[in-house]
Order: sequence, then structure tokens, then C-alpha cells
Amino acid sequence: MRFVDIIEKKRDGKALNQEEIHFWIQGYVKGTIPDYQVSALCMAIYFQGMNDDEIAILTNEMLHSGDVIGLSDIAGMKADKHSTGGVGDKTSLSLAPMVAACGLKVAKMSGRGLGHTGGTLDKVESIEGFDISLDEEEFKKQVNDIGLAIIGQTRQVVPADKKLYGLRDVTATVNSIPLIASSIMSKKLASGSDTILLDVKFGEGAFMKTPHDAQVLAETMIRIGKKLGKDTRAMISNMNQPLGNAIGNALEVKEAIATLKDEGPQDFKELCMKAGSIMLMQGKIASDESEARKMLQENIDNGNALLKLVEMVKAQKGNPEQILHPEKLPTAKYQIEINALTEGYIKNLHALELGTLAMLIGAGRKVKEDSINHAVGIVLKKKDGDYVKIGDSLATVHTDQPLTDEWIKEFYECFEMSQTPVQKAPLIYQVIE
Amino acid sequence: MRFVDIIEKKRDGKALNQEEIHFWIQGYVKGTIPDYQVSALCMAIYFQGMNDDEIAILTNEMLHSGDVIGLSDIAGMKADKHSTGGVGDKTSLSLAPMVAACGLKVAKMSGRGLGHTGGTLDKVESIEGFDISLDEEEFKKQVNDIGLAIIGQTRQVVPADKKLYGLRDVTATVNSIPLIASSIMSKKLASGSDTILLDVKFGEGAFMKTPHDAQVLAETMIRIGKKLGKDTRAMISNMNQPLGNAIGNALEVKEAIATLKDEGPQDFKELCMKAGSIMLMQGKIASDESEARKMLQENIDNGNALLKLVEMVKAQKGNPEQILHPEKLPTAKYQIEINALTEGYIKNLHALELGTLAMLIGAGRKVKEDSINHAVGIVLKKKDGDYVKIGDSLATVHTDQPLTDEWIKEFYECFEMSQTPVQKAPLIYQVIE
Repeated sequence: MRFVDIIEKKRDGKALNQEEIHFWIQGYVKGTIPDYQVSALCMAIYFQGMNDDEIAILTNEMLHSGDVIGLSDIAGMKADKHSTGGVGDKTSLSLAPMVAACGLKVAKMSGRGLGHTGGTLDKVESIEGFDISLDEEEFKKQVNDIGLAIIGQTRQVVPADKKLYGLRDVTATVNSIPLIASSIMSKKLASGSDTILLDVKFGEGAFMKTPHDAQVLAETMIRIGKKLGKDTRAMISNMNQPLGNAIGNALEVKEAIATLKDEGPQDFKELCMKAGSIMLMQGKIASDESEARKMLQENIDNGNALLKLVEMVKAQKGNPEQILHPEKLPTAKYQIEINALTEGYIKNLHALELGTLAMLIGAGRKVKEDSINHAVGIVLKKKDGDYVKIGDSLATVHTDQPLTDEWIKEFYECFEMSQTPVQKAPLIYQVIE
Repeated sequence: MRFVDIIEKKRDGKALNQEEIHFWIQGYVKGTIPDYQVSALCMAIYFQGMNDDEIAILTNEMLHSGDVIGLSDIAGMKADKHSTGGVGDKTSLSLAPMVAACGLKVAKMSGRGLGHTGGTLDKVESIEGFDISLDEEEFKKQVNDIGLAIIGQTRQVVPADKKLYGLRDVTATVNSIPLIASSIMSKKLASGSDTILLDVKFGEGAFMKTPHDAQVLAETMIRIGKKLGKDTRAMISNMNQPLGNAIGNALEVKEAIATLKDEGPQDFKELCMKAGSIMLMQGKIASDESEARKMLQENIDNGNALLKLVEMVKAQKGNPEQILHPEKLPTAKYQIEINALTEGYIKNLHALELGTLAMLIGAGRKVKEDSINHAVGIVLKKKDGDYVKIGDSLATVHTDQPLTDEWIKEFYECFEMSQTPVQKAPLIYQVIE
């Protein structure tokens, strides 16, 4: 078999078979197929797509390119949830303790962030001492004991994806549904949970720009999950404006803690309630949504959800005092209020630009080698649809350095105003099973 | 400037500018831009194409990636001709001596072949001692003295194309009009002739499968030539069946010699007469086609065309006895007649398959490292439209090894028969100026 023939076949719009995809992934991981052929194939896939069979085969081949974590020796149902990512997305930090408090086990492997703000791992590392590098045995023991762990991906899980994603990132081939779907699903399937909930975001702060694209990606992943025998569901949510109010690592941890005390922003809480209900139903802990919501609310009200986060932080060598007293989390040197210069309704609040502005003051990485300043970021005071008077605070910027005029000018440009009332867009568009 | 942004721009169908194309070609030749990014860009170009400005810029950047040969110190007009290649294409071997005998100077840099039969260099190397590696000064002196030289491309001419073609060959990105056009034209422009004639072939034995595709490629190259200030013309010719009768290196040299004695196949002679007339008009040696044809025929009739080939062979250390007595050229151990098993008219004579069959007995290279057996090949006795009776010879196969049943079976499959008379397709479809 010659790899150039496989590239040509896909270039000409034909479907690759099991043998060809196996040859690709095995050869790429072993290093017998060079990057320059794989990048050409990825670009051909960008243009020609892949059918469901091809995507399921690709996912399965990637999944088996490395270790598959077995969670079967952990008692009970193990749930996993994946967000395609967006600005201000701290969902795992509230949602995982909430469902764990209801008795569902969450064994979560997360990633770091590139572009705008950090990933879940960067966020939890705002907590002093928090250790994300448990080995597989420690990880399973912790999930078994307290029902919850958040760690970094171990080196041996889906090495094909690691290598492929690195290549796609520098060859403009990230944005391809078959490649995104197989990348996400291979990692989720390799991490061994019984159920998968996908939060597929659309909007300017997300990979997928429209609800339709998000729906296509979600349906693709659900079909892969089903073909490979896993209960997979998805919700489609709006990422045109940031999720919640906080953007930046420690600031998002604080907002997650507030949410566990029912003092967080309404939109973010609703996303956690909706996602949590689906997960509890997938895990057969609740039989319908209203029962699930009731359980989640009870565990917020009785403090168990917050305690679950404290337990996890303790188990992973983090400082629990910072959870119980969030003011002890890293704090930036300056808190600068940005006040409205015009009056009106907020029509658009540009998520991606806000994320980039947060990155520019240190909340995210421009390149892999950059380090993150956990303390800095932006806390919004107004969101889409809100009415703003001149002088009202639009946001507080937490920064270790004075803001430049250019930065402030760009910040104001993130707020598009209207003189007539604006309908708030729904946060959750659709649930797909 | 980041190369990934250039890839993305082309992927999204936008035109690249001078600065971006310069960055690409310079960086690729210097090695600062890796193969894996360039192959992704080539695949994006395969799908999105390039406009005329982009192709002209790319050609010019490639042309200036290395040495540009200056032929201005050679007296008179210097003509170049390029064929996009096909099965049995020995045109340069007859055409160059014909026009050189008429006083037009031909400074020809040729290539080797990959797939089916050899390239022009492989063919001339059938002649004992023939040296294709003159340096630039020797090359120019020979063209000045005798009006004719055929050499291999010097290492320093268009290094960008050398590197890029090698990459395209293994990433299924050869077949892209902007990339083919800029590859051919950068080499032609770098070799310094005053005029360029392109023989763009279509059909199953050629890169371009239809007359339309060939026309698009030809027009693209003519526009590049004009933008870069060079008299460029093209003819579109049929490569659905092999050109002439001989396929294989020494066999093609013999056919070229026969043609210079006016004893060659009619179709091949006509191609040389047509191409030669255009070249003589481009070189201002003839004012119209009929004058040009008359000059060419005179130089065949008086033996000067053949003598010009002998002169070139002598000058390049080849054995002229093999030109004067072609039976002294390499000869295969066996000459096997393949006789018709059915009666009828030949409707299709599959060029590519015949080329591949010639390669399988040693006339061409499957991979770059293969060596060529100059003696072997196929001489057709019947062509498209010919009537065949059972027992008629279809071809003589020249081979050093017995033919397998499989080979013979495939050989017969190259001849598609019809019971009703078949119109012969014209060889030359169009001339474009």
C-alpha cells in the first residue's frame, strides 16, 4: 500500500476503508508515514469530508493507537462531559462536583488552553498545590473513593491525536468536522467512561460559527459514539458572548465556587443544571429532567456540591482554604473599572475579542511556551440585552500591568450597542440524543 | 508573517500576494518552511486554484530561486519547446535537428522519465557515450557552434521546482494547473531562450485528460509567458494513443532517425512539421507556415536535418555510427510478434497501459532508483482506425526476457476493437498564440 494513493483517493472524494485508515494511523504513530503526507491528506479531508463509517473507523484507530483506560473496577456509573470550548467556559469546575454530589462518578481528563484563556487544567492550577498529574491507579482510586477527579491526559492516551493535532494546528486543517469529531471522540472513548455528554458550542467565540455547524458536529459525534457502543448525547449552546461573567483562570474558579453556592450568574448556572440533568439521566440516577434538577438544586442548597469540590482539591494536594475562602485565590495588582461611554442596549458582546484581550494581559497563551498569569482577566458587569447608562461599569479588569489606550479602545469595541431593546438569545439551543 | 495564515488564506479561496508567495518560495528553498506546511498549501491550491497574477508571481519567484541561464551571447534566435509528455513522445529528437538545420538555435534542457518510458535524457542515453552533463559554458558554446544541444537540467536552475515537484509527487498534488503551469514555465524561462513552444497533450496517456483541460493549461502558460515578456505559443495534441509507433528508448531514437530520413510514421512527422513551423515563425526564420514547412522538408530531403543530429551526437561524445547505422543501437534479445486474435477496426489503443507494459519489461522506471533497459520496448504495427485481420501483427515486442501470459493478456486488452469503420481522431487539435 502506498500512502500517496490514499491521499489521491481522498482528494478525489472517495471513501477510505478500514485497511487504509489503519495503515495511516499506525504508520503515522510509528513514524513510517511522514508529516508532509499526512498534512496533505488532512487538507484533502478538509475539502472532501468523510462519511460516518470512515469517521468511526478513524476514531477507533486513533483510540487504539495508545492505552485505553479501563474504569470498570470503579463501582457505579462513570460519566464524562466534553465542551468544544469557548470564552469563560468553567463548566467542569461546577458541573462535575454537582453531579458527583448526586452520586454520579466523574473521571475527567482535561487539556490546557491555547489562544484566549486557559483550559480546565490551567484553571484548576490557579489553586495552590493542585496536582493534575495523577497516575492511572491514583486517578481510579480517587474516583472510586470520592467520585471525582480532574487530571491531565496521560501521555499514553491517544498518541495519534496528540501528533495529528499538533500537525493540524500549523497546517490550517483544524477546522474539519471529521477531524474534530474523531479527535474528541477518540479521547473520550479512550478515557473509559460509561456515558459521554458533549457541549458543542457555536458562535464567534467557538470553533463552529453557526448553530447548524455545531449541530452537524454534534450529530456526527453522536453517531460515532453509537457506532462504537457508547451512550453519547449533546447539547448545542451559544458562545457569541462569554459564558458567565468571569474570563481568566482564578476569576473563573471564583465564579465556579460562587455557582456551587448558588451565587453565580444565571446563564452559567442554567447551563450546569441542564448538562447535569442530562448526565444524571444518562447515569440512571434520575429518571427525568425535573427529578434530576431537583437533586442538583438540593445538593447546591445543602452545601454538598461545594464540599465535593473541596474534597477533590484536598485529594489532589490543592489548598482547600482557597475554595472555602475564594479571596485567597491569586489576585491581580489592579482592579480597573471600565465605565460605559454611551447609553443603550448591548446588542453584541464579542466573545472572541474579549478572550483575546484577556490573553493579552496574561490570562492565556499566544504560543505553547507562554506561561499563564492565573490572577488576571475580565469580569463582565453587563451582558447581551442589558441596558447600560453612561458611567455604568461594563466590567472590572483584573491586571498586573496598567492597560494601554489601545487595549481600552479595543475593549470598548467589544460592546456593540443599540438604541432599541434587544432580545436576549437563548443560551441552550438544542439537546440531541 | 506566519505560514499557517498563508495556508488558511488559500484554503479559504483567497488570492495570495507577492509578499506571501515570496515568503513561501524563499522560505521553502532555505528550509525555514517545512515540507508538511508546503504540502498542505499545495493541496489547498489543488482545490482552490490560483488566479493569473498569483501564477505569474509564483513562476517568477521560482524562476529566481536559482540561476537564470543567459543565452544572449549566443548569436541569433534561441528557441525552446516543451512537451507535457506522453507515451512514445520522441519529438525533441527529430524536431530539434530539423529546426536547427533551418538555422534556428535550440538550447534544450530536458528531464528523465518516471512511470512508463524514459524522458528525453533517457532516450539520448541509448546512444553510446552520449554526455548530457555539459556545464553552462560548454552548453552555450555548443549551441553557438552547431545550433543545438540537449542536456540535463543543471542543479542550480529552479531549485524551488526541484524540491516542490519532489514533494508534490508523494502528496497527490501534481495534478494542479497552477502548479503544473508555474513548474513548466519557471524552468522554461530560466533556461533563457527567446521563444517557447508548448506541446500540451491530452488523453489517457497524458496528465490532462480532456482537450478542454489541456487548453486551460496551455492558455494559463501562455498568459504567464506574456506577463513575463516571452513569446509563448502552444499546440494541443492528442495522446489517447501513443505518438508514432515506437515506445521504448533506443526504439524511439531509431524512429526519430527514420523520421529525419522521411521514413517515419506519418502522425509523428506531422507533429514535428507543425511544431517546427511554429518555432521557425516564432524565430522569424519563416514568415508563414507554408514557407516554414517548405524549409523543413528541404532540410529533410537534403539530409541536413539528420546531419545536424549526427553533429550534436559527436559534440556530446556520443557514437555517431549509431545514428548513421541505427541497427548498431542497443537491441533486445527477443523480437516477439503479437498477432491479432480477432478481426475489426481499432477503436481505442490505450496509450497509458501500453506505456506501463513497456515499463514492466524494463523501458521505464517504477521508482526513481530503477535503471532503464534502453533496448526494450514495443513497436506498434497498427494504430487507431486501422483495419486488422486475424493473424496480422499488432506489434513487435522487443524484450530481454520471455513475456508472461499475464503481460500478453494485458497487451491484447490495450486494443479495443469495433466491427464498423472508425474515424481516426486528429492528432493536433488546436494551435494557441
